[in-house]
Amino acid sequence: MKINCDMGESFGPWVMGQDSAIMPFLDMANIACGMHASDPLVMLNTIRLAKQHGVAIGAHPGYHDLQGFGRRNLTLSDDELYGLFVYQIGALQLMCASEGQSLRYVKPHGALYNTMMKDDHTFEVLLQAMKHAMPSLPLVCMAVPNQEKYQQQAHKHGIHLWFEAFVDRAYNEDGRLVDRSIAGSTYQDLDTIRAQAISLIEHQQVTTLTGRLIPIQADTLCVHGDGNLALPTAQLLANLLRDEAKQ
Amino acid sequence: MKINCDMGESFGPWVMGQDSAIMPFLDMANIACGMHASDPLVMLNTIRLAKQHGVAIGAHPGYHDLQGFGRRNLTLSDDELYGLFVYQIGALQLMCASEGQSLRYVKPHGALYNTMMKDDHTFEVLLQAMKHAMPSLPLVCMAVPNQEKYQQQAHKHGIHLWFEAFVDRAYNEDGRLVDRSIAGSTYQDLDTIRAQAISLIEHQQVTTLTGRLIPIQADTLCVHGDGNLALPTAQLLANLLRDEAKQ
Amino acid sequence: MKINCDMGESFGPWVMGQDSAIMPFLDMANIACGMHASDPLVMLNTIRLAKQHGVAIGAHPGYHDLQGFGRRNLTLSDDELYGLFVYQIGALQLMCASEGQSLRYVKPHGALYNTMMKDDHTFEVLLQAMKHAMPSLPLVCMAVPNQEKYQQQAHKHGIHLWFEAFVDRAYNEDGRLVDRSIAGSTYQDLDTIRAQAISLIEHQQVTTLTGRLIPIQADTLCVHGDGNLALPTAQLLANLLRDEAKQ
Amino acid sequence: MKINCDMGESFGPWVMGQDSAIMPFLDMANIACGMHASDPLVMLNTIRLAKQHGVAIGAHPGYHDLQGFGRRNLTLSDDELYGLFVYQIGALQLMCASEGQSLRYVKPHGALYNTMMKDDHTFEVLLQAMKHAMPSLPLVCMAVPNQEKYQQQAHKHGIHLWFEAFVDRAYNEDGRLVDRSIAGSTYQDLDTIRAQAISLIEHQQVTTLTGRLIPIQADTLCVHGDGNLALPTAQLLANLLRDEAKQ
Repeated sequence: MKINCDMGESFGPWVMGQDSAIMPFLDMANIACGMHASDPLVMLNTIRLAKQHGVAIGAHPGYHDLQGFGRRNLTLSDDELYGLFVYQIGALQLMCASEGQSLRYVKPHGALYNTMMKDDHTFEVLLQAMKHAMPSLPLVCMAVPNQEKYQQQAHKHGIHLWFEAFVDRAYNEDGRLVDRSIAGSTYQDLDTIRAQAISLIEHQQVTTLTGRLIPIQADTLCVHGDGNLALPTAQLLANLLRDEAKQ
Repeated sequence: MKINCDMGESFGPWVMGQDSAIMPFLDMANIACGMHASDPLVMLNTIRLAKQHGVAIGAHPGYHDLQGFGRRNLTLSDDELYGLFVYQIGALQLMCASEGQSLRYVKPHGALYNTMMKDDHTFEVLLQAMKHAMPSLPLVCMAVPNQEKYQQQAHKHGIHLWFEAFVDRAYNEDGRLVDRSIAGSTYQDLDTIRAQAISLIEHQQVTTLTGRLIPIQADTLCVHGDGNLALPTAQLLANLLRDEAKQ
Repeated sequence: MKINCDMGESFGPWVMGQDSAIMPFLDMANIACGMHASDPLVMLNTIRLAKQHGVAIGAHPGYHDLQGFGRRNLTLSDDELYGLFVYQIGALQLMCASEGQSLRYVKPHGALYNTMMKDDHTFEVLLQAMKHAMPSLPLVCMAVPNQEKYQQQAHKHGIHLWFEAFVDRAYNEDGRLVDRSIAGSTYQDLDTIRAQAISLIEHQQVTTLTGRLIPIQADTLCVHGDGNLALPTAQLLANLLRDEAKQ
Repeated sequence: MKINCDMGESFGPWVMGQDSAIMPFLDMANIACGMHASDPLVMLNTIRLAKQHGVAIGAHPGYHDLQGFGRRNLTLSDDELYGLFVYQIGALQLMCASEGQSLRYVKPHGALYNTMMKDDHTFEVLLQAMKHAMPSLPLVCMAVPNQEKYQQQAHKHGIHLWFEAFVDRAYNEDGRLVDRSIAGSTYQDLDTIRAQAISLIEHQQVTTLTGRLIPIQADTLCVHGDGNLALPTAQLLANLLRDEAKQ
């Protein structure tokens, strides 16, 4: 089980997150690629920071919408989406190569991630892009009860999936995240976060907001890089997983 | 001797140039990378067009300034420039790979090209970027009388240079182009263009605006992709070079 | 009855439309405001062109999406939309003032226009913006059979509406335009355009694609500024309306 | 003597400065206009914040370079600069009007401000823009020993100037700020800031980095909105000026 976190989401003069503080606790750094956040200098510095801490680098491509931070849906043609996706992965990959690093995986961002999980056709276009551009890299998706469906679709293209779960967000009974606008959707205390992390790590399940247990089979746990609890959550997960590894 | 031309300089709904008409006559297509022109969809379509006509694809990175079309100078730190350059090359390279094509060379655009030719330090940063990101690809520079200086600097980093000359622009005695603001700087008739092309191809020299002959040793001739004479110039050069090859 | 046309949709080095040729035939120039097209220099030059021909200037604000030309929907909060709308109108208005011109009306562009016509809440936000920022200017909407609904909503805020009809597009029976993806949606010959223009001018009705007559009460006719028929359509309308005025 | 501070420099999801904390201590809020920082939503919220605290609102236009935060020089034609300047002022002005506020002054930002102070021709273009677009508003410039030169140039166009001085930056003997790259250029303690403020308020002079006294006649003192000392500096100045007013 790996810890992943969105990194490199600053832009020009604007700083977002606490990359230097959090990076040491991560296994996987999802680096923004300049379309929803970041710019080439931020990317370069974030690659160097990940390299320094031996953290695996993944591309974190999103819609080209800085002002909306890639959280607004954009309706794109298949070729537009394909091109936009490959463009960002390629940009980051060569920057990694120029720093002696390899790109290890791809995780879509924000609205693109959500649309990929909801819309088969969008998922298909991203799989096509992976197959043609980066066939050996895994694509990170959300761990959901029906993830076989996604695996089957990816398998047709020879693409490996990694599934991620969230330790600081409440789940609905269908295995999707409770919308942020609903009370209780986002955990505000480390005890709840720790309990959900242990449930995910040891039992491959979470307790939904409504109190039911549902199965969630995750390869990696996502830490949100902003907010007060970002750093302690990263530390908590790193400790949990180290203890787990020792057993 | 190869013919190169800037391609893929449309953006979103805005069309620039006559790519479909000119591509068949080219050997090398310098494809814009989304910073001074182009977007991922335009890049994808331009790669496909080059592939269809068997034209070698080069990256044509520029400053990130769509409104100014990369023709305005931007003062960047070394890391900013390094990152910006590698970012664009990587984006195009992976898009090429996803279409089964290889990236063959890199030619900077506009103000970045001019600054590279004028400022040793900028040239050095671009050579560093090539060495770390794309050591086997040639970098296209302007053919000038003192091109050994550039070759020596590039040689230290193991980077091969290709030199290009211009068939439709008048030269100063120092081997630089006459500024566009000066009368006679840009040729308006095909006869003058043909004469300069033949002079460059057969004698490795040009006649300056002041009437002197200066040596210009070029590997490739650049056709400007816009303007009325773009298409006939491309045809003329293709014919000249084909005849040359037969001899 | 006035002729309106979208003007000033070039951007940086990219030219769109034939503004200089079409402007002399217009009564109303809808000038893009830098978010979906245009930039301050294009706006300035377009204002000067309109001034030279005595054409009334309207603001043509759109979503902030150059690459998508404001034709893609963006989900915005009320304040985001309000701000975006007022921002663009204000920018153009002061540029007009600095050239001794007055802004005469506002016509939303592309996806924003379509959303305004479909979604009451969006229309309400734009009316609020007009009321607070430009209470004396009319807002241009699409002429539809049920336009009283729009008038009532606008009337509550004291905003006057102008309704526009299209001479080169086929109508559905509900008075909306036939989608561009459907055959016959866009007229390719001047005779059909002339017939629809006369029908709109003299009888306040159009024949739908299905052959029915529906009422369309328009204050102004829109000419599309791009396409082969843009200029002859503008000329045709100008002639028709001049003849009409003489009778 | 008034306190001015750059406000509204956030962009999309990225926060800059501590506007809510600092606004209560200001007399003048220089609000960014969307080109070097800010967006319409940030502008709207900043106008509302200024209104709530009764702070005079000024336009703070800059070069259109978000990534470089308007701190890099851009070479623009006169019409490009004129248009860019009026565009931003107009956008903010109408947003103010829609909130029942008036725009009170204009203060250029960053590289544009520096170029205006160094280059007569740039200053002239900005004065022309003020004259045509906003003849009754003052333009904020840097207080320098030879400010009569600026006043004479502005006077020809009927434009009133306000001069600002800096309480947290060291001065050269020519009355310009010591470059940030030089040790001691930026004060790190409140005592030095307070001393310079008192010197400016009571004696219209500052002690240069080299220890000389030079005359600086300021109408307003600028507080930098970022950095640890931003808030205490604003408080300190507000207290000083309140005490001053009581005497």
